[in-house]
Amino acid sequence: MTNYRKIDVHAHILPENMPNLKDKFGYGDEFIYLDHFQPGRANMMKADGTFFRTIDELCWNPESIIEHMDKHDVELMALSIVPVLFYYWAKPEHTLEWAQYYNNHLAKIQETYPTRFVGLATLPMQDINLACQELSRCKHELNLPGVEIGTHIEHRNLDDEYYFPFYETAEKLGMCIFVHPWDMMGQERMPKYFLPWLIGMPAETSLAICSMLFGGIFDKFPKLRVLFAHGGGCFPQTIGRISHAYHARPDLCNVHKVDDPRTYTDKFYIDSLVHDDETFKFLLNMFGADKIAMGSDFPFPLGDLEHGRFIELMKNLDEETKVKLLRNTAKEWLGI
Amino acid sequence: MTNYRKIDVHAHILPENMPNLKDKFGYGDEFIYLDHFQPGRANMMKADGTFFRTIDELCWNPESIIEHMDKHDVELMALSIVPVLFYYWAKPEHTLEWAQYYNNHLAKIQETYPTRFVGLATLPMQDINLACQELSRCKHELNLPGVEIGTHIEHRNLDDEYYFPFYETAEKLGMCIFVHPWDMMGQERMPKYFLPWLIGMPAETSLAICSMLFGGIFDKFPKLRVLFAHGGGCFPQTIGRISHAYHARPDLCNVHKVDDPRTYTDKFYIDSLVHDDETFKFLLNMFGADKIAMGSDFPFPLGDLEHGRFIELMKNLDEETKVKLLRNTAKEWLGI
Repeated sequence: MTNYRKIDVHAHILPENMPNLKDKFGYGDEFIYLDHFQPGRANMMKADGTFFRTIDELCWNPESIIEHMDKHDVELMALSIVPVLFYYWAKPEHTLEWAQYYNNHLAKIQETYPTRFVGLATLPMQDINLACQELSRCKHELNLPGVEIGTHIEHRNLDDEYYFPFYETAEKLGMCIFVHPWDMMGQERMPKYFLPWLIGMPAETSLAICSMLFGGIFDKFPKLRVLFAHGGGCFPQTIGRISHAYHARPDLCNVHKVDDPRTYTDKFYIDSLVHDDETFKFLLNMFGADKIAMGSDFPFPLGDLEHGRFIELMKNLDEETKVKLLRNTAKEWLGI
Repeated sequence: MTNYRKIDVHAHILPENMPNLKDKFGYGDEFIYLDHFQPGRANMMKADGTFFRTIDELCWNPESIIEHMDKHDVELMALSIVPVLFYYWAKPEHTLEWAQYYNNHLAKIQETYPTRFVGLATLPMQDINLACQELSRCKHELNLPGVEIGTHIEHRNLDDEYYFPFYETAEKLGMCIFVHPWDMMGQERMPKYFLPWLIGMPAETSLAICSMLFGGIFDKFPKLRVLFAHGGGCFPQTIGRISHAYHARPDLCNVHKVDDPRTYTDKFYIDSLVHDDETFKFLLNMFGADKIAMGSDFPFPLGDLEHGRFIELMKNLDEETKVKLLRNTAKEWLGI
């Protein structure tokens, strides 16, 4: 069997040692600190003492991660922050300070292991000037190929004109954008069964795609390279409903004079993380292998911790397609 | 071409003349009244004077509806209320009074046109005793075959033990349940592009399916015949993620000791309303024609106002399958 030298576009990392931001800034019960309760394991804790989740060193130790990658033929990973650390709700200058800390950490990993990792920066998106300033720094000083942002930022969706300078800067710098669900809609209504992750996250991703699509972002900034997590969330299978609405209620949907939503599936990227062969084939049929890149959500339990093995095993898929899905589309999206 | 004598499980109707409930009960800005501003057209208005939507007589006049049905080879329609008229937020005795008014109206239509319409009742679901009482009346006095309920009721999801008497009664009476999205999660975050209908509604339907599934409802009440609108919303294409979570985090997902979510696709019904052939084929592959019934969301613009014509035209679908999708599965679900 071919060794695909896979590239994984969706993997998370955080610094083993994080400053205690609540102590530092004097507010913010939602800042996260790590409680390293035994070697190689830690609890992510909110500053108010609420438990968030337990993680292990695959979440912070590049050497352990590389060992795991080698087992699964992953040559390169694009590392990004865990969304709970976006901190878009904090004072902009504090989020900037944190983003710089995180991005410098990423850059150091990328520099230390240049053939194994690239970093996707985090930005203080709630302040567009600071965001653009840090984006430029990430390009020119840190050499990071792209950024990760949330499916919305505080009260603003991704169609908001407020973000146009960010899109313009990313386009100009040739930096890719990874859109990751977070701060899930309806979570207060879903106390059980992990549903904010199973329903809220895919809905968030559809919100991000629909906002950018109907907001005309893909038309205004045609060179942007945007990738949406989790196979595009709920968007692909509701495209019929979305397109139908575009035609039936243009007064509501088409205020920015965009094209039929169906025509945009070659204007952005999605990752492969759907955990279902039939769903994946549906996506492949809709988006094509040029727009789907393997993403794992490593190292979390909802992830594909075999990094696209299901693609390798898939029948009726030619080698060229597999190489695109497992490697080449990621390279194109990342611009490397 | 075969005349399929189609049955449509998803169609809405409301009374041409509705009592002014705010005047009657002395509260409730969200009660709806009709402003018949010209012959055959009316605005649905909230009691506080807010415009909701414009409708025409296809929303209330059985004769006009039959004319439309005849054009599209629809023999029978299952009529249900428009969700904004559920009024689950009102005082239970007032919702009961309204439900009785509406259900009597439905029963009269069913009685007048017994070969063309059946009615799906509405219930005061916020008060389980009143709901069960009205459900029995709908069966024994009105002869209605089933009910329509929302994807949640106020703060309670459909897994709540509070509803067990309702499920028990529906099962005992052999009445089918139509679950329709409403009161969409995240709508405050989606002011543009009709997104509560395009993202919130499919997410709501997945919430309802996941709540009932993980809540063990399909196991506890195995004879329930439940149908979810809009092709099951976001559930089908996120089944990989949902099933993966079930295995990866049983502590969160499997508190009620249910089976793998993938095994439940023969335990409930969905309608056909996805506006996309590829998505429909995906659903057909997952659920089978025994569990998919044609539904149109008539007479609203987001609906399939050709009532499953796309199924009639579909290639590589044998006649038996088409007859199931367009007629027989509906009959089985309705129990007629």
